[in-house]
Amino acid sequence: MTQTKIPATPTIRRLPSYLHIIKQAQSEGTEYISGTVIANELNLEPIQVRKDLALTGITGKPKRGYPVGELICAIEHFLGWDTPKKAVLIGAGNLATALSGYQEFKYHGLNFVAAFDTSADRIGKTIHDVPIFALDELAAKVKELEVTIAVLTVPSSQAQQTAETVVQAGINAIWNFTNTKLKVPDHVAVQREDLTSGFAMLSVMISGSIQTND
Amino acid sequence: MTQTKIPATPTIRRLPSYLHIIKQAQSEGTEYISGTVIANELNLEPIQVRKDLALTGITGKPKRGYPVGELICAIEHFLGWDTPKKAVLIGAGNLATALSGYQEFKYHGLNFVAAFDTSADRIGKTIHDVPIFALDELAAKVKELEVTIAVLTVPSSQAQQTAETVVQAGINAIWNFTNTKLKVPDHVAVQREDLTSGFAMLSVMISGSIQTND
Repeated sequence: MTQTKIPATPTIRRLPSYLHIIKQAQSEGTEYISGTVIANELNLEPIQVRKDLALTGITGKPKRGYPVGELICAIEHFLGWDTPKKAVLIGAGNLATALSGYQEFKYHGLNFVAAFDTSADRIGKTIHDVPIFALDELAAKVKELEVTIAVLTVPSSQAQQTAETVVQAGINAIWNFTNTKLKVPDHVAVQREDLTSGFAMLSVMISGSIQTND
Repeated sequence: MTQTKIPATPTIRRLPSYLHIIKQAQSEGTEYISGTVIANELNLEPIQVRKDLALTGITGKPKRGYPVGELICAIEHFLGWDTPKKAVLIGAGNLATALSGYQEFKYHGLNFVAAFDTSADRIGKTIHDVPIFALDELAAKVKELEVTIAVLTVPSSQAQQTAETVVQAGINAIWNFTNTKLKVPDHVAVQREDLTSGFAMLSVMISGSIQTND
Protein backbone atom coordinates (compact mmCIF):
# COMPACT_ATOMS: atom_id res chain seq x y z
CA MET A 1 0.00 0.00 0.00
CA THR A 2 1.42 3.40 -0.87
CA GLN A 3 2.25 5.61 2.07
CA THR A 4 0.81 9.01 1.18
CA LYS A 5 -0.45 11.99 3.15
CA ILE A 6 -4.21 12.20 3.26
CA PRO A 7 -5.52 15.54 2.04
CA ALA A 8 -8.81 13.86 1.19
CA THR A 9 -9.64 12.72 4.75
CA PRO A 10 -12.38 15.29 5.46
CA THR A 11 -13.82 14.62 2.00
CA ILE A 12 -13.97 10.89 2.60
CA ARG A 13 -15.56 11.48 6.00
CA ARG A 14 -18.25 13.63 4.36
CA LEU A 15 -19.11 11.25 1.52
CA PRO A 16 -21.30 8.92 3.66
CA SER A 17 -23.47 11.90 4.64
CA TYR A 18 -23.83 12.88 1.00
CA LEU A 19 -24.69 9.30 0.12
CA HIS A 20 -27.37 9.23 2.81
CA ILE A 21 -29.04 12.39 1.45
CA ILE A 22 -28.77 11.30 -2.19
CA LYS A 23 -30.25 7.87 -1.43
CA GLN A 24 -33.12 9.54 0.40
CA ALA A 25 -33.70 11.75 -2.68
CA GLN A 26 -33.69 8.62 -4.84
CA SER A 27 -36.25 6.93 -2.61
CA GLU A 28 -38.47 9.98 -3.13
CA GLY A 29 -38.22 9.59 -6.91
CA THR A 30 -35.74 12.44 -7.52
CA GLU A 31 -33.60 11.97 -10.66
CA TYR A 32 -31.20 14.89 -10.30
CA ILE A 33 -29.81 16.55 -7.19
CA SER A 34 -27.79 19.76 -6.99
CA GLY A 35 -24.68 20.33 -4.92
CA THR A 36 -26.49 23.27 -3.30
CA VAL A 37 -29.32 21.06 -2.03
CA ILE A 38 -26.81 18.66 -0.46
CA ALA A 39 -24.81 21.59 0.96
CA ASN A 40 -27.89 23.14 2.57
CA GLU A 41 -28.88 19.86 4.21
CA LEU A 42 -25.45 19.58 5.83
CA ASN A 43 -24.72 23.24 6.46
CA LEU A 44 -21.72 23.19 4.12
CA GLU A 45 -20.60 25.49 1.32
CA PRO A 46 -21.85 24.34 -2.14
CA ILE A 47 -18.33 24.72 -3.56
CA GLN A 48 -17.09 22.25 -0.93
CA VAL A 49 -19.70 19.69 -1.91
CA ARG A 50 -18.91 20.07 -5.62
CA LYS A 51 -15.18 19.67 -4.95
CA ASP A 52 -15.79 16.57 -2.82
CA LEU A 53 -18.06 14.98 -5.41
CA ALA A 54 -15.57 15.72 -8.21
CA LEU A 55 -13.32 13.17 -6.52
CA THR A 56 -15.76 10.41 -7.46
CA GLY A 57 -15.48 11.31 -11.14
CA ILE A 58 -19.09 12.39 -11.62
CA THR A 59 -19.83 15.93 -12.83
CA GLY A 60 -23.13 17.70 -12.47
CA LYS A 61 -25.11 19.12 -15.38
CA PRO A 62 -25.68 22.90 -15.34
CA LYS A 63 -29.11 23.77 -13.85
CA ARG A 64 -30.01 20.10 -13.27
CA GLY A 65 -27.32 18.84 -10.91
CA TYR A 66 -26.02 15.31 -10.55
CA PRO A 67 -27.81 12.22 -11.88
CA VAL A 68 -28.85 10.53 -8.63
CA GLY A 69 -28.41 6.87 -9.67
CA GLU A 70 -24.99 7.41 -11.21
CA LEU A 71 -23.82 9.50 -8.28
CA ILE A 72 -24.79 6.81 -5.75
CA CYS A 73 -22.85 4.17 -7.73
CA ALA A 74 -19.84 6.47 -8.07
CA ILE A 75 -19.67 7.28 -4.35
CA GLU A 76 -20.14 3.63 -3.36
CA HIS A 77 -17.44 2.59 -5.81
CA PHE A 78 -15.07 5.32 -4.60
CA LEU A 79 -15.54 4.16 -1.01
CA GLY A 80 -15.17 0.51 -1.95
CA TRP A 81 -18.66 -0.10 -0.56
CA ASP A 82 -19.71 -2.02 -3.66
CA THR A 83 -17.37 -4.85 -2.58
CA PRO A 84 -18.58 -6.96 0.37
CA LYS A 85 -16.05 -7.34 3.20
CA LYS A 86 -15.86 -9.84 6.04
CA ALA A 87 -14.95 -8.50 9.45
CA VAL A 88 -14.40 -9.87 12.93
CA LEU A 89 -15.06 -8.16 16.25
CA ILE A 90 -12.15 -8.46 18.68
CA GLY A 91 -13.65 -8.17 22.13
CA ALA A 92 -17.32 -9.11 22.52
CA GLY A 93 -18.50 -6.60 25.12
CA ASN A 94 -21.07 -3.82 24.97
CA LEU A 95 -19.47 -1.84 22.17
CA ALA A 96 -19.04 -4.95 19.99
CA THR A 97 -22.66 -5.87 20.67
CA ALA A 98 -23.80 -2.38 19.65
CA LEU A 99 -21.70 -2.46 16.47
CA SER A 100 -22.87 -5.94 15.48
CA GLY A 101 -26.46 -4.73 15.68
CA TYR A 102 -25.87 -1.64 13.57
CA GLN A 103 -27.84 -2.35 10.36
CA GLU A 104 -26.25 0.46 8.37
CA PHE A 105 -22.94 -1.40 8.09
CA LYS A 106 -24.54 -4.26 6.13
CA TYR A 107 -25.80 -1.82 3.51
CA HIS A 108 -22.19 -0.74 3.01
CA GLY A 109 -20.84 -4.23 2.51
CA LEU A 110 -19.48 -4.73 6.04
CA ASN A 111 -20.38 -8.17 7.37
CA PHE A 112 -19.44 -9.33 10.85
CA VAL A 113 -18.80 -13.07 10.59
CA ALA A 114 -17.34 -13.77 14.03
CA ALA A 115 -16.42 -12.21 17.37
CA PHE A 116 -13.53 -13.15 19.65
CA ASP A 117 -13.04 -12.82 23.37
CA THR A 118 -10.92 -14.22 26.16
CA SER A 119 -13.76 -14.44 28.69
CA ALA A 120 -15.18 -17.94 29.22
CA ASP A 121 -18.57 -16.32 29.97
CA ARG A 122 -18.84 -15.03 26.43
CA ILE A 123 -17.21 -17.74 24.31
CA GLY A 124 -19.81 -19.96 22.65
CA LYS A 125 -22.55 -17.33 22.82
CA THR A 126 -23.66 -14.95 20.06
CA ILE A 127 -24.14 -11.21 19.71
CA HIS A 128 -26.81 -10.36 17.12
CA ASP A 129 -26.31 -13.81 15.56
CA VAL A 130 -22.53 -13.35 15.39
CA PRO A 131 -20.83 -16.34 17.09
CA ILE A 132 -18.21 -15.63 19.78
CA PHE A 133 -15.03 -17.71 19.69
CA ALA A 134 -11.94 -17.88 21.89
CA LEU A 135 -9.24 -15.42 20.81
CA ASP A 136 -6.89 -18.43 20.40
CA GLU A 137 -8.98 -19.51 17.43
CA LEU A 138 -8.55 -16.21 15.58
CA ALA A 139 -5.86 -17.24 13.08
CA ALA A 140 -7.70 -20.41 12.07
CA LYS A 141 -11.06 -18.62 11.69
CA VAL A 142 -9.56 -15.72 9.73
CA LYS A 143 -8.20 -18.23 7.22
CA GLU A 144 -11.36 -20.33 7.14
CA LEU A 145 -13.76 -17.38 6.78
CA GLU A 146 -11.51 -15.19 4.58
CA VAL A 147 -11.70 -12.21 6.94
CA THR A 148 -10.06 -8.93 5.91
CA ILE A 149 -11.01 -6.50 8.70
CA ALA A 150 -10.71 -6.63 12.50
CA VAL A 151 -12.74 -4.23 14.65
CA LEU A 152 -10.85 -3.73 17.89
CA THR A 153 -13.12 -3.14 20.89
CA VAL A 154 -10.95 -4.50 23.71
CA PRO A 155 -9.95 -2.38 26.74
CA SER A 156 -7.23 0.12 25.76
CA SER A 157 -4.74 -1.58 28.09
CA GLN A 158 -4.94 -4.73 25.93
CA ALA A 159 -5.08 -2.93 22.59
CA GLN A 160 -1.45 -3.19 21.42
CA GLN A 161 -1.03 -6.83 22.38
CA THR A 162 -4.33 -7.80 20.76
CA ALA A 163 -3.50 -5.82 17.61
CA GLU A 164 -0.31 -7.88 17.28
CA THR A 165 -2.35 -11.08 17.52
CA VAL A 166 -4.67 -9.70 14.83
CA VAL A 167 -1.77 -8.88 12.50
CA GLN A 168 -0.19 -12.29 13.10
CA ALA A 169 -3.51 -13.85 12.13
CA GLY A 170 -3.08 -12.27 8.70
CA ILE A 171 -5.45 -9.29 8.95
CA ASN A 172 -4.26 -6.10 7.26
CA ALA A 173 -7.01 -3.66 8.24
CA ILE A 174 -7.88 -2.66 11.82
CA TRP A 175 -10.76 -0.41 12.88
CA ASN A 176 -9.50 0.68 16.25
CA PHE A 177 -12.12 1.75 18.83
CA THR A 178 -9.59 1.83 21.66
CA ASN A 179 -7.81 4.88 22.93
CA THR A 180 -4.40 3.48 21.98
CA LYS A 181 -2.29 4.54 19.02
CA LEU A 182 -1.31 1.13 17.67
CA LYS A 183 2.17 0.26 16.47
CA VAL A 184 1.70 -2.01 13.48
CA PRO A 185 3.73 -2.88 10.36
CA ASP A 186 3.46 -0.44 7.44
CA HIS A 187 1.29 -2.75 5.35
CA VAL A 188 -1.48 -2.70 7.98
CA ALA A 189 -4.14 -0.01 7.63
CA VAL A 190 -5.48 1.39 10.89
CA GLN A 191 -8.49 3.66 11.31
CA ARG A 192 -8.89 4.93 14.85
CA GLU A 193 -12.38 5.90 15.89
CA ASP A 194 -11.94 8.67 18.39
CA LEU A 195 -15.21 9.34 20.20
CA THR A 196 -13.66 12.27 22.02
CA SER A 197 -13.42 14.16 18.72
CA GLY A 198 -17.21 14.17 18.40
CA PHE A 199 -17.46 15.37 21.98
CA ALA A 200 -14.97 18.10 21.13
CA MET A 201 -17.32 19.32 18.39
CA LEU A 202 -20.31 19.34 20.73
CA SER A 203 -18.38 21.10 23.49
CA VAL A 204 -17.26 23.88 21.18
CA MET A 205 -20.83 24.29 19.92
CA ILE A 206 -22.12 24.58 23.48
CA SER A 207 -19.47 27.12 24.33
CA GLY A 208 -21.03 29.21 21.57
CA SER A 209 -18.27 29.49 19.00
CA ILE A 210 -19.96 27.51 16.24
CA GLN A 211 -23.16 25.68 15.51
CA THR A 212 -23.94 22.81 13.21
CA ASN A 213 -26.95 20.64 12.70
CA ASP A 214 -25.54 17.73 10.75
CA MET B 1 -26.13 30.74 19.49
CA THR B 2 -24.78 32.30 16.32
CA GLN B 3 -25.47 30.34 13.16
CA THR B 4 -22.16 30.25 11.33
CA LYS B 5 -20.54 27.93 8.82
CA ILE B 6 -17.93 25.69 10.37
CA PRO B 7 -14.57 26.01 8.65
CA ALA B 8 -12.86 24.85 11.83
CA THR B 9 -14.56 21.45 12.02
CA PRO B 10 -11.57 19.32 10.95
CA THR B 11 -9.37 21.37 13.28
CA ILE B 12 -11.64 20.78 16.25
CA ARG B 13 -11.81 17.08 15.43
CA ARG B 14 -8.00 16.92 15.43
CA LEU B 15 -7.43 18.79 18.70
CA PRO B 16 -8.23 15.80 20.96
CA SER B 17 -5.53 13.76 19.20
CA TYR B 18 -3.04 16.57 19.72
CA LEU B 19 -4.06 16.80 23.35
CA HIS B 20 -3.52 13.07 23.81
CA ILE B 21 0.03 13.27 22.42
CA ILE B 22 0.91 16.43 24.34
CA LYS B 23 -0.36 14.96 27.61
CA GLN B 24 1.69 11.86 27.00
CA ALA B 25 4.77 14.07 26.43
CA GLN B 26 3.98 15.87 29.70
CA SER B 27 3.74 12.59 31.60
CA GLU B 28 7.22 11.77 30.27
CA GLY B 29 8.58 15.04 31.67
CA THR B 30 8.79 16.93 28.37
CA GLU B 31 8.52 20.74 28.74
CA TYR B 32 8.36 21.78 25.09
CA ILE B 33 6.92 19.97 22.08
CA SER B 34 7.26 20.95 18.43
CA GLY B 35 4.48 20.97 15.84
CA THR B 36 6.62 18.63 13.76
CA VAL B 37 6.73 15.99 16.50
CA ILE B 38 2.93 16.09 16.80
CA ALA B 39 2.55 16.04 13.01
CA ASN B 40 4.79 12.99 12.66
CA GLU B 41 2.85 11.08 15.31
CA LEU B 42 -0.40 11.66 13.41
CA ASN B 43 0.88 11.55 9.85
CA LEU B 44 -0.12 15.17 9.22
CA GLU B 45 1.72 18.11 7.69
CA PRO B 46 3.53 20.27 10.32
CA ILE B 47 2.00 23.43 8.81
CA GLN B 48 -1.46 21.95 9.43
CA VAL B 49 -0.67 21.29 13.09
CA ARG B 50 0.72 24.80 13.58
CA LYS B 51 -2.35 26.35 11.96
CA ASP B 52 -4.66 24.25 14.11
CA LEU B 53 -2.82 25.11 17.32
CA ALA B 54 -2.80 28.82 16.43
CA LEU B 55 -6.58 28.69 16.94
CA THR B 56 -6.03 28.10 20.66
CA GLY B 57 -3.99 31.30 20.96
CA ILE B 58 -0.69 29.67 21.91
CA THR B 59 2.36 30.25 19.73
CA GLY B 60 5.47 28.11 19.69
CA LYS B 61 8.96 29.39 20.36
CA PRO B 62 11.47 29.04 17.51
CA LYS B 63 13.59 25.88 17.91
CA ARG B 64 11.87 24.91 21.19
CA GLY B 65 8.25 24.47 20.22
CA TYR B 66 5.18 24.88 22.41
CA PRO B 67 5.27 24.99 26.21
CA VAL B 68 3.52 21.71 27.07
CA GLY B 69 1.63 22.80 30.19
CA GLU B 70 0.31 26.01 28.65
CA LEU B 71 -0.65 24.25 25.44
CA ILE B 72 -2.68 21.62 27.32
CA CYS B 73 -4.57 24.32 29.21
CA ALA B 74 -5.18 26.31 26.02
CA ILE B 75 -6.56 23.33 24.09
CA GLU B 76 -8.77 22.25 27.00
CA HIS B 77 -10.05 25.77 27.39
CA PHE B 78 -10.70 26.13 23.64
CA LEU B 79 -12.70 22.89 23.68
CA GLY B 80 -14.57 23.86 26.82
CA TRP B 81 -13.17 20.75 28.51
CA ASP B 82 -12.10 22.74 31.57
CA THR B 83 -15.79 23.15 32.48
CA PRO B 84 -17.51 20.03 33.86
CA LYS B 85 -20.76 19.10 32.10
CA LYS B 86 -23.62 16.86 33.16
CA ALA B 87 -25.06 14.55 30.54
CA VAL B 88 -27.82 11.97 30.30
CA LEU B 89 -27.93 8.86 28.15
CA ILE B 90 -31.21 8.48 26.27
CA GLY B 91 -31.62 4.78 25.63
CA ALA B 92 -29.83 2.40 28.00
CA GLY B 93 -28.81 -0.40 25.63
CA ASN B 94 -25.41 -1.72 24.58
CA LEU B 95 -24.10 1.51 23.10
CA ALA B 96 -25.14 3.53 26.16
CA THR B 97 -23.48 0.94 28.38
CA ALA B 98 -20.28 1.14 26.34
CA LEU B 99 -20.29 4.96 26.45
CA SER B 100 -20.99 5.12 30.19
CA GLY B 101 -17.95 2.92 30.81
CA TYR B 102 -15.63 5.03 28.64
CA GLN B 103 -13.21 6.57 31.16
CA GLU B 104 -11.79 9.13 28.72
CA PHE B 105 -14.98 11.22 28.82
CA LYS B 106 -14.59 11.91 32.55
CA TYR B 107 -11.13 13.39 31.96
CA HIS B 108 -12.76 15.82 29.55
CA GLY B 109 -15.42 17.00 31.96
CA LEU B 110 -18.26 14.84 30.61
CA ASN B 111 -20.19 13.22 33.46
CA PHE B 112 -23.10 10.86 32.89
CA VAL B 113 -25.53 11.43 35.75
CA ALA B 114 -28.52 9.39 34.55
CA ALA B 115 -29.80 7.16 31.76
CA PHE B 116 -33.37 6.90 30.48
CA ASP B 117 -35.24 4.09 28.79
CA THR B 118 -38.77 2.96 28.07
CA SER B 119 -38.12 -0.71 28.77
CA ALA B 120 -39.36 -1.94 32.16
CA ASP B 121 -36.49 -4.48 32.16
CA ARG B 122 -33.94 -1.69 32.33
CA ILE B 123 -35.60 0.96 34.50
CA GLY B 124 -34.32 0.88 38.07
CA LYS B 125 -31.03 -0.81 37.13
CA THR B 126 -27.65 0.84 36.56
CA ILE B 127 -25.05 0.89 33.79
CA HIS B 128 -21.56 1.52 35.16
CA ASP B 129 -23.12 3.09 38.27
CA VAL B 130 -25.36 5.37 36.19
CA PRO B 131 -28.99 4.90 37.31
CA ILE B 132 -31.62 4.15 34.66
CA PHE B 133 -34.95 6.02 34.93
CA ALA B 134 -38.18 5.93 32.93
CA LEU B 135 -38.15 8.34 29.99
CA ASP B 136 -41.23 9.99 31.50
CA GLU B 137 -39.06 11.28 34.31
CA LEU B 138 -36.62 13.05 31.98
CA ALA B 139 -37.89 16.64 32.37
CA ALA B 140 -37.94 16.42 36.17
CA LYS B 141 -34.48 14.86 36.37
CA VAL B 142 -32.97 17.34 33.92
CA LYS B 143 -34.15 20.15 36.14
CA GLU B 144 -33.12 18.44 39.37
CA LEU B 145 -29.66 17.41 38.17
CA GLU B 146 -28.95 20.49 36.00
CA VAL B 147 -28.23 18.44 32.90
CA THR B 148 -27.01 20.22 29.76
CA ILE B 149 -26.27 17.38 27.30
CA ALA B 150 -28.32 14.42 26.05
CA VAL B 151 -26.58 11.50 24.34
CA LEU B 152 -29.07 9.88 22.01
CA THR B 153 -28.57 6.12 21.62
CA VAL B 154 -32.14 5.01 20.84
CA PRO B 155 -33.02 3.07 17.66
CA SER B 156 -33.02 5.40 14.63
CA SER B 157 -36.76 4.89 14.14
CA GLN B 158 -37.40 6.55 17.52
CA ALA B 159 -34.76 9.24 17.16
CA GLN B 160 -36.83 12.24 16.04
CA GLN B 161 -39.62 11.68 18.56
CA THR B 162 -37.15 11.15 21.40
CA ALA B 163 -35.16 14.23 20.39
CA GLU B 164 -38.34 16.29 20.71
CA THR B 165 -38.87 14.93 24.24
CA VAL B 166 -35.27 15.87 25.03
CA VAL B 167 -35.70 19.43 23.74
CA GLN B 168 -38.98 19.81 25.64
CA ALA B 169 -37.15 18.74 28.78
CA GLY B 170 -34.96 21.82 28.36
CA ILE B 171 -31.78 20.28 26.93
CA ASN B 172 -30.01 22.35 24.28
CA ALA B 173 -27.21 20.01 23.24
CA ILE B 174 -27.69 16.58 21.67
CA TRP B 175 -24.96 14.09 20.83
CA ASN B 176 -26.75 12.00 18.25
CA PHE B 177 -25.55 8.41 17.78
CA THR B 178 -28.56 7.49 15.62
CA ASN B 179 -28.63 7.46 11.86
CA THR B 180 -31.32 10.15 11.74
CA LYS B 181 -30.79 13.79 10.83
CA LEU B 182 -32.76 15.44 13.63
CA LYS B 183 -35.08 18.37 13.09
CA VAL B 184 -34.66 20.58 16.15
CA PRO B 185 -35.09 24.30 16.91
CA ASP B 186 -32.19 26.58 15.95
CA HIS B 187 -31.04 27.07 19.54
CA VAL B 188 -30.34 23.33 19.95
CA ALA B 189 -26.82 22.14 19.07
CA VAL B 190 -26.64 18.68 17.51
CA GLN B 191 -23.49 16.67 16.90
CA ARG B 192 -24.14 13.53 14.90
CA GLU B 193 -21.69 10.69 15.40
CA ASP B 194 -21.59 8.92 12.10
CA LEU B 195 -19.81 5.59 12.48
CA THR B 196 -20.07 4.96 8.76
CA SER B 197 -17.64 7.83 8.13
CA GLY B 198 -14.89 5.96 9.99
CA PHE B 199 -15.72 2.86 7.98
CA ALA B 200 -15.49 4.97 4.81
CA MET B 201 -11.92 5.91 5.79
CA LEU B 202 -10.95 2.29 6.40
CA SER B 203 -12.58 1.10 3.17
CA VAL B 204 -10.70 3.64 1.09
CA MET B 205 -7.45 2.67 2.80
CA ILE B 206 -8.05 -0.98 2.03
CA SER B 207 -8.84 -0.19 -1.59
CA GLY B 208 -5.30 1.16 -1.71
CA SER B 209 -5.81 4.86 -2.43
CA ILE B 210 -4.50 6.17 0.87
CA GLN B 211 -2.98 4.96 4.10
CA THR B 212 -2.94 6.43 7.56
CA ASN B 213 -1.84 5.12 10.90
CA ASP B 214 -3.53 7.50 13.25
